[in-house]
Amino acid sequence: MTLLRSYVSGDWFTAPDEGAPLHDAVTGEEVARISSTGVDMDAALDYGRRVGGPALGELTFHQRAALLKALASHLREHRDELYALSARTGSTLGDSKFDVDGGIGVLFAFASKGKRELPNDTVYVEGDVEPLGRGGTFVAQHIASPLHGVAVQINAFNFPVWGPLEKFAPAFLAGVPSLVKPASQTAYLTEKLVELIIDSGLLPEGSLQLVCGSAGDLLDHVTAQDLVSFTGSASTARKLRAHPAIVRNAVRFNAEADSLNCSILGPDAKPGTPEFDLYVKQLVTEMTVKAGQKCTAIRRAFVPAELLDDVAEAVSARLAKVVVGNPNSEGVRMGALASLEQREEVRRSLKALQAAGSIVFGDPERVEVTDADAERGAFISPILLKGDPERAEPHEVEAFGPVSTLLQYTSAEQVIGYAARGEGSLAGSVVTGDAEFAREIVLGVAPWHGRLLVLDTDDAKESTGHGSPMPQLVHGGPGRAGGGEEMGGIRGVLHHMQRTAVQASPRVLSAVTGRWVAGAPRAEGVHPFRKSLAELKIGDSVVAGPRAVTREDVDHFAEFTGDTFYAHTDPDAAAANPLFGGIVAHGYLVVSFAAGLFVSPEPGPVLANYGLENLRFLTPVKPGDELTVTLTCKQITPRLDQDYGEVRWDADVTNAGGDSVAKYDVLTLVAKEDS
Amino acid sequence: MTLLRSYVSGDWFTAPDEGAPLHDAVTGEEVARISSTGVDMDAALDYGRRVGGPALGELTFHQRAALLKALASHLREHRDELYALSARTGSTLGDSKFDVDGGIGVLFAFASKGKRELPNDTVYVEGDVEPLGRGGTFVAQHIASPLHGVAVQINAFNFPVWGPLEKFAPAFLAGVPSLVKPASQTAYLTEKLVELIIDSGLLPEGSLQLVCGSAGDLLDHVTAQDLVSFTGSASTARKLRAHPAIVRNAVRFNAEADSLNCSILGPDAKPGTPEFDLYVKQLVTEMTVKAGQKCTAIRRAFVPAELLDDVAEAVSARLAKVVVGNPNSEGVRMGALASLEQREEVRRSLKALQAAGSIVFGDPERVEVTDADAERGAFISPILLKGDPERAEPHEVEAFGPVSTLLQYTSAEQVIGYAARGEGSLAGSVVTGDAEFAREIVLGVAPWHGRLLVLDTDDAKESTGHGSPMPQLVHGGPGRAGGGEEMGGIRGVLHHMQRTAVQASPRVLSAVTGRWVAGAPRAEGVHPFRKSLAELKIGDSVVAGPRAVTREDVDHFAEFTGDTFYAHTDPDAAAANPLFGGIVAHGYLVVSFAAGLFVSPEPGPVLANYGLENLRFLTPVKPGDELTVTLTCKQITPRLDQDYGEVRWDADVTNAGGDSVAKYDVLTLVAKEDS
Repeated sequence: MTLLRSYVSGDWFTAPDEGAPLHDAVTGEEVARISSTGVDMDAALDYGRRVGGPALGELTFHQRAALLKALASHLREHRDELYALSARTGSTLGDSKFDVDGGIGVLFAFASKGKRELPNDTVYVEGDVEPLGRGGTFVAQHIASPLHGVAVQINAFNFPVWGPLEKFAPAFLAGVPSLVKPASQTAYLTEKLVELIIDSGLLPEGSLQLVCGSAGDLLDHVTAQDLVSFTGSASTARKLRAHPAIVRNAVRFNAEADSLNCSILGPDAKPGTPEFDLYVKQLVTEMTVKAGQKCTAIRRAFVPAELLDDVAEAVSARLAKVVVGNPNSEGVRMGALASLEQREEVRRSLKALQAAGSIVFGDPERVEVTDADAERGAFISPILLKGDPERAEPHEVEAFGPVSTLLQYTSAEQVIGYAARGEGSLAGSVVTGDAEFAREIVLGVAPWHGRLLVLDTDDAKESTGHGSPMPQLVHGGPGRAGGGEEMGGIRGVLHHMQRTAVQASPRVLSAVTGRWVAGAPRAEGVHPFRKSLAELKIGDSVVAGPRAVTREDVDHFAEFTGDTFYAHTDPDAAAANPLFGGIVAHGYLVVSFAAGLFVSPEPGPVLANYGLENLRFLTPVKPGDELTVTLTCKQITPRLDQDYGEVRWDADVTNAGGDSVAKYDVLTLVAKEDS
Repeated sequence: MTLLRSYVSGDWFTAPDEGAPLHDAVTGEEVARISSTGVDMDAALDYGRRVGGPALGELTFHQRAALLKALASHLREHRDELYALSARTGSTLGDSKFDVDGGIGVLFAFASKGKRELPNDTVYVEGDVEPLGRGGTFVAQHIASPLHGVAVQINAFNFPVWGPLEKFAPAFLAGVPSLVKPASQTAYLTEKLVELIIDSGLLPEGSLQLVCGSAGDLLDHVTAQDLVSFTGSASTARKLRAHPAIVRNAVRFNAEADSLNCSILGPDAKPGTPEFDLYVKQLVTEMTVKAGQKCTAIRRAFVPAELLDDVAEAVSARLAKVVVGNPNSEGVRMGALASLEQREEVRRSLKALQAAGSIVFGDPERVEVTDADAERGAFISPILLKGDPERAEPHEVEAFGPVSTLLQYTSAEQVIGYAARGEGSLAGSVVTGDAEFAREIVLGVAPWHGRLLVLDTDDAKESTGHGSPMPQLVHGGPGRAGGGEEMGGIRGVLHHMQRTAVQASPRVLSAVTGRWVAGAPRAEGVHPFRKSLAELKIGDSVVAGPRAVTREDVDHFAEFTGDTFYAHTDPDAAAANPLFGGIVAHGYLVVSFAAGLFVSPEPGPVLANYGLENLRFLTPVKPGDELTVTLTCKQITPRLDQDYGEVRWDADVTNAGGDSVAKYDVLTLVAKEDS
């Protein structure tokens, strides 16, 4: 039998011992053996820091994003190999797609976010420049730089592909190497995933390592620059959080623990309404996908007291149609739990839940299965309970399988209180057609949730469902759910970076961030619109004007555009305006005249003005005022896959007194080379 | 002797026992006694959650900001009372201002940030709407809501006013009540502060509590919705981080621990340069302000090897002029340490440091003092050492007093490595006139720092210095510095809130966030420019057009504004443009015509258009195209202190084919009532 390998310090490593057996969830056959005996954990971390980090640091965010995209495409080509192994974990093809395609989707999403929302640079600049002195000579800005350590990623057994990828993608984009430690039970699938990744040759060496088997003394060696991310049980999360090395070095520790997620049916959603059906259908889906082994699955199904029996009946009827069995067989809707041990665990939890309720559907000890042996395989029936919401168990005991408890409520306030008794959840949902009820519930339970879904007929068709974390959105929840946050788009990237406030003069701050900061030197000379990206530098600038704005200009602009707002046209009414006290020029006129001043009309590297940002009209422009505009190159973002890039310009329009009348950023596309 | 009181569960509480004595740092006299015996910690937390949280939850961000501002003004009026007590902690008047005025400044800063950067609402909406389906019926957005717990704030002895206020301000603005636990040594000053605050009657009851004395079993009672913030020693930070209740409930724990901060002199800054003098002056200031009892003080002073002797000499010469003594006396520049125990601690650390270096200035056992008894008072001389940067001690041993070690380096790479050996710092600084050297150092050491200052002749006059945390900027650092983050403007507010991703249809998302989301219903009828804030609702909308754009319009606009860019004027050149392929209308023309379409010209509640945001030109407009604009009320922000507010409008300009040609937000000021 094959011993799973680890990939550490630049090479595949096979343990010298026999390892422990891993069993097929469906047949009970041995799939592989696992051992990390002999893996030098300290050396692996050191290798990541020494080789992986610097290699990633050479790449810009856009280059890393492009690699993630290429990697996603590569894995998509090979996904059948992953599906095949995935079936041995008890997963149906649908379950496998949830795991495999879901994971690949995360890579694509981070590739896209990285390209669109991060600069083509190695420094991330966060937020506005903060003025720290009246004179403008002392300013600050926050930057984020990749931690110089390794992201240690300890994953759960239920998503052996999605789990590692959703942790890897933001770390990689941040420039931090990963060391992946899958749960043993399904590690053979993660090993295959990492093999596909390493064989692709796409990633810089050292940016991804794998340890199959026990973590050994891995955590003893983490330093203040490393990170530890964990997905799994709340009890293990607590153990790791208090690990001496993590505590000693204030290591960034992120936990995502399974929680007692709730789904709330609105009082409007009576039988016969589409929302009633959506609720019932979603509950059955959440109970049966991955045989309920999802950290986000619905454990507590809150329904109005008067609808309890209707819901119980409708859910039971649907559950009765769920075919359980060999995930490879036609028609099978729910596969096996990941292992026989897992089944025992679920049965134990069910006993506890039964103390506070009764089973409405299913038998924990008996299930009819298709094309499989119900005892050798880790099969269990879906189990629906009715519980007493005043008791502790439904809010505290999690059966990590196809198990959910119906709980009744009588008011919004009451159900908000019940939801809070879960002490923190990853995800919750409300199914209602009543936007006011949705608002009340969402704002009421939000402090206990990382993600909330409102399901109704408007979004049902496109909804990704209660249980699906999305790469754009934070995944994680307070308290029992671990108190962490993963993904969430660029938030997940920044989690791997150190935020530093840099205080300096505008000149030095510009040099540090690579962005021109107001007050930094400007260079005049050749009109900057005549410079390609190859020639253009931040600070390149043109000052143009003055141009007088006459009353005739304002009248004409009003007539030409149709913008006859009284402040531009009616002297008496304008005089009564508390902010203007007389005729003022249109803001649109001001920026149009400014463009007329700063533009360099002949064909050249500037291809288009694609937008404007942060425009503020600061001082009213009155007829007779003279306008001067200063346009300065602020930020240059070459695009990897185009022969042009984005250039952001600072525009400052001033009057004869030197006051700024309008400030804004002009966004242009500029060719990389002169054509 | 007075026993310090606690303020818990709505009342002042005096312990029934005698308490422990607190001594004047200068005279050794007893100032007060302290005891928390009998304080019901569990009840206090419960009171905060039950009374303080809901009371704060009733207020909008702007209302909380206004209270912070009023509180800041109130404390400013009473600051002399605080200065007087502060002197007994060993502080000079300058030190006291640093603490007292610094703390009041934090309140003002958060008041201003809250008004400018937060909505006048109870829900905070973070980031863009994330589309989750192609059809636009399923979208998401992140919201932040205040945690339903108490922010437990454990402060250090060195800033008994600033410390509590810098933790309180962001918590209050977030809507989370505070429970302040000052360090005993200087708790009499914090007690006075809280007394002034409570007596002001400005704050909602329950939003601020105080425990003077031991924390007792306080932390045993924290839940998943509470937060714990700690400032103090790295060793206590570790103990608290691993506290069973904090670990069990994944309580948000933030630590800010004193660290071995560095200041680096650039190789360009030779004797005689202004930067050399700035470095020397700053080092002496950092050593002597608060007698060096600052978490951010410079402990490691890195200088180019060839400048080591010059710096040692110049610093020693300045230190020789520092008058140590009774902080109330004229001419005294440095007061006492906070206690005799503190002095013993500093002397112990100095012994360890001397193993890796030698004293250049000062005698740990002897100091000349003015108007005080050098032994009864906790006085110590400023001590400058020269150390061996290859040894461990200078990077690991902190003498929390007027102590700094000079360390030599020979290259940028080397000093970056040395800086990292501090294993994480709150603050660092570079003094250089060379922007490239500054860039290299800043980007090199950023992963180990929460804040970095570059000091040069440009910013020296306005610089707030190496050791001053700023409310706008993050305060905290990785690793040894505690791994936390405080303040940082709105970041510090969000730290007290739960981020939740809300997935819904646009209609429901609008209802939840109170902001109109694209795809949500719009209401046409009375032109929305005719509605005051009292009448206006999000979703109120006007559709106007179509208006054709002719070639003559484009020609005329080019001529009128001077914007004769070839894409608008030269058919052949425009045809060659890779993005347009022919004459296009100016973007400024498009938005000007759109304004002409949507405006309602007569005087009414709309007072002014004060800006535009996120303008993107999405489809080129060619002569002959017909434009229609849809303007929809997106967000309404009444101003507390004005009779108008801000209204943000969504503008969508489409062509005859229905494609968006431009999208942007229009920002207006609108009267609260019809005049």
